[in-house]
Amino acid sequence: MAALTLREIVARLGGEAVGEASSPLTGVATLESAGPSDISFLANPRYRPKLATTRAGAVIVGLGERDALDRPRIVSDNPYAYYARAAALFHPQPAVSPGVHPTAQVHPGARVDPAAEVGAFAVVGAGSRVAAGASVGAHSVLGANVEVGEGTRLHPSVTIYDGCRLGARCIVHSGAVIGADGFGMAREAGRWIKIPQVGGVRIGDDVEVGANTTIDRGALDDTVIGDGVKLDNQIQIAHNCVIGAHTVIAGCTGISGSVTIGRDCMIGGGVGIVGHISICDRVTISGMTLVAKPITRPGTYTSGLPMMAHKDWLRNAAHLRRLDRIARRAASAPSGEDLGRDDDD
Amino acid sequence: MAALTLREIVARLGGEAVGEASSPLTGVATLESAGPSDISFLANPRYRPKLATTRAGAVIVGLGERDALDRPRIVSDNPYAYYARAAALFHPQPAVSPGVHPTAQVHPGARVDPAAEVGAFAVVGAGSRVAAGASVGAHSVLGANVEVGEGTRLHPSVTIYDGCRLGARCIVHSGAVIGADGFGMAREAGRWIKIPQVGGVRIGDDVEVGANTTIDRGALDDTVIGDGVKLDNQIQIAHNCVIGAHTVIAGCTGISGSVTIGRDCMIGGGVGIVGHISICDRVTISGMTLVAKPITRPGTYTSGLPMMAHKDWLRNAAHLRRLDRIARRAASAPSGEDLGRDDDD
Amino acid sequence: MAALTLREIVARLGGEAVGEASSPLTGVATLESAGPSDISFLANPRYRPKLATTRAGAVIVGLGERDALDRPRIVSDNPYAYYARAAALFHPQPAVSPGVHPTAQVHPGARVDPAAEVGAFAVVGAGSRVAAGASVGAHSVLGANVEVGEGTRLHPSVTIYDGCRLGARCIVHSGAVIGADGFGMAREAGRWIKIPQVGGVRIGDDVEVGANTTIDRGALDDTVIGDGVKLDNQIQIAHNCVIGAHTVIAGCTGISGSVTIGRDCMIGGGVGIVGHISICDRVTISGMTLVAKPITRPGTYTSGLPMMAHKDWLRNAAHLRRLDRIARRAASAPSGEDLGRDDDD
Repeated sequence: MAALTLREIVARLGGEAVGEASSPLTGVATLESAGPSDISFLANPRYRPKLATTRAGAVIVGLGERDALDRPRIVSDNPYAYYARAAALFHPQPAVSPGVHPTAQVHPGARVDPAAEVGAFAVVGAGSRVAAGASVGAHSVLGANVEVGEGTRLHPSVTIYDGCRLGARCIVHSGAVIGADGFGMAREAGRWIKIPQVGGVRIGDDVEVGANTTIDRGALDDTVIGDGVKLDNQIQIAHNCVIGAHTVIAGCTGISGSVTIGRDCMIGGGVGIVGHISICDRVTISGMTLVAKPITRPGTYTSGLPMMAHKDWLRNAAHLRRLDRIARRAASAPSGEDLGRDDDD
Repeated sequence: MAALTLREIVARLGGEAVGEASSPLTGVATLESAGPSDISFLANPRYRPKLATTRAGAVIVGLGERDALDRPRIVSDNPYAYYARAAALFHPQPAVSPGVHPTAQVHPGARVDPAAEVGAFAVVGAGSRVAAGASVGAHSVLGANVEVGEGTRLHPSVTIYDGCRLGARCIVHSGAVIGADGFGMAREAGRWIKIPQVGGVRIGDDVEVGANTTIDRGALDDTVIGDGVKLDNQIQIAHNCVIGAHTVIAGCTGISGSVTIGRDCMIGGGVGIVGHISICDRVTISGMTLVAKPITRPGTYTSGLPMMAHKDWLRNAAHLRRLDRIARRAASAPSGEDLGRDDDD
Repeated sequence: MAALTLREIVARLGGEAVGEASSPLTGVATLESAGPSDISFLANPRYRPKLATTRAGAVIVGLGERDALDRPRIVSDNPYAYYARAAALFHPQPAVSPGVHPTAQVHPGARVDPAAEVGAFAVVGAGSRVAAGASVGAHSVLGANVEVGEGTRLHPSVTIYDGCRLGARCIVHSGAVIGADGFGMAREAGRWIKIPQVGGVRIGDDVEVGANTTIDRGALDDTVIGDGVKLDNQIQIAHNCVIGAHTVIAGCTGISGSVTIGRDCMIGGGVGIVGHISICDRVTISGMTLVAKPITRPGTYTSGLPMMAHKDWLRNAAHLRRLDRIARRAASAPSGEDLGRDDDD
């Protein structure tokens, strides 16, 4: 771990250093757990009271907190992003060790850049290319004609099927499966016939794919993941989805086939999206929402049922089955209010 | 990729060729992306307008669209299934390359048919059998006494625990885990004691198992997946479930222990099914439905809450907590309607 | 499989043997499938009628069923736990075969106890320690500085990232990924900047982790899984969660970042928990509940919508979008009941 002074950090990342700026700092930590050699940060105003009690050697704060503490500090207009960059100074990504591990199986028809790393027991299929600065983790398997862009890192045990392409500077976590067959079948005489899935998966630059996330190949055209998309763990993206640039999706979300999602969306965890719909740019979906219709206006959308104590739930939930009746009763009751028209959804 | 004429396709798959039938076609494509050497298809009436603008060399259509276009075409009573079969002509499954990769670890007590393939770094345990035409992908691990039926294909990095059996012509995608311990525990003095899971998993013929799907072994009896069942990615099937033939289940669905599902069911994505219940044949469950009771009549069942703009949700959802009160108020209000009895659920 | 008499079982596990106690028994089975050489059990009163028809050679029953059958039996105050222990007598966990498989890659700077087992193609990184009686399954990958405690068993294809620690007697199933990066990003100028995830994962003793479950490393501090916690398959635990001792979580549940869950909780399957909240000890959450607020009182909590036939759902669900209006109408209607105050949630 490097040691850096406040002055050195500001020299590299910008921002304003206030207070003693030449003591060595050796790491980042939360306000609560930081000691005198750690730098900490305040990004969420709710933790502001902790400024009074933290033992941190320095703190990254926003413009509004410039004078909220006596400790050495860095003032930034985006303290959370500043913290991200400062943490990367103290914990730089380990360097790639160029070379192919002697146990790896690289097909003679594959091209691994001399500046790329291929780990133990990895398999690289015919026609595949691994670019400079990329790493293929131990036990990862690339089929035939796979492309791994410059600086892209595959953690151990990633599987990429034939013909899928990843851009530059991506990160793919263990257990992710990219390019398995889409779930396409036709019914005939009471049986399901498999529809060959002959499209691929095309992933842009700077994409992160979480552990055990699955992205299926397209049936005919490709499944497409835009630049800068961030996918958490255990997400399922079905065939022929198109995810716009810089959209982030939290864990356990499932996206059905042929869904198009715009740019700069934020999709919560455990969300389900039905097939063949479009969601426009800059949409936020709350966790565990079922998206069963297209979304054409930016904004936040929700469908989760609020949790109740189970005994209250028993009392209330039964009425959901007769809501139509309740609504009709309520509507037919004489009322003192002018309720306007009732069909506005 | 093979080149085929309309005449050749019809000779192999049946149907009626209409129009010029001797030009070579080299692939399948959507109506939108097809060029003059591609064959396309119309299965969903909603895309019918695209018939006018497609550049496809030929189109597979239903009986009702026989005369809806001038292009060369194949008329079929099931154009979607026809497309599935035509696509398989152009993109036949790659042949198995018989033989055991030199890096694979096959136990001397295992039997691998000479016409089967075992990939790089695969592990095949004692007493296991891999039948003719089957393939075990790179990095797949078969425990002891596993059976892999004729023509069954395991993609890379599939794990099958001891004693599990797969029938013929199955496809198992990467990351699938078959036969891990069911989640069985007994509580004793504030601790959980593991219940040994000594049943197995028995999978029929023509089953497809998606990427990262998990099927647990039974506690005492087997977990059973019927013939022709198709499972999408990231499905969890708990111990002692029995899934009837030709049932399909979409991604991210979780099925609790000892659930019995009938034949020819269609279970949507993200569905949750509580333990120890039965679902009869020919049931359709909408995506993200919670199935908390047995289903004894064929039909479609749903419980997803419709999505709203978040501000509308805030206004509406709060009332769910006091629905009992609202219902009682509505019921006690004088009404002009005859509402009949109120306890019919 | 061992053969044991009732007398021998009682000698080892306690309880009272009633009836003929010297016939050899060779296995455990359900009341329905047991034969004369099997021992069965009755834990759920709903199966009591099966006592009359079972062919089991002996049955484990509770105190209340002592005289409910003529067959040889063991009477225990906790027949389910007794069954768990009896099943383990007949099906003991296979012994660890000490030694490192010749194909495994163990870093010279790692320490594998001579009484530990490391399977085919496993990778053990620099500084990692595998304690006595532990086993690392085929194809499992341990990064650098990983600790695997005494007697802990990793099934094949488990991935553990750098610096994560597991206690004693844990079981980790195939496809589990422990210590992948938490999903932490800061937004800056329309892009997402990765926040280095420099905490680890600390897992206690006697923990079970299901197949394809993922537990992310902490951003700064560790993610912590307490002693005796049992996790089913396909669970996602995000960075900096703290799960209290002896809590059990069913499959497909997703827990967002920085959630603290108490001891002795039971979390159902498919549950979603939003980030940065606390749940106290002894809480039960029903399957598919969305937990969007802290829980401060022990008890059972629920939010699942009850399933309906789809046509009923169509009729009822539309009203959810106008529940606010319905509630206001109901509230404004003249009523014969005293409904008390309406804002008690």
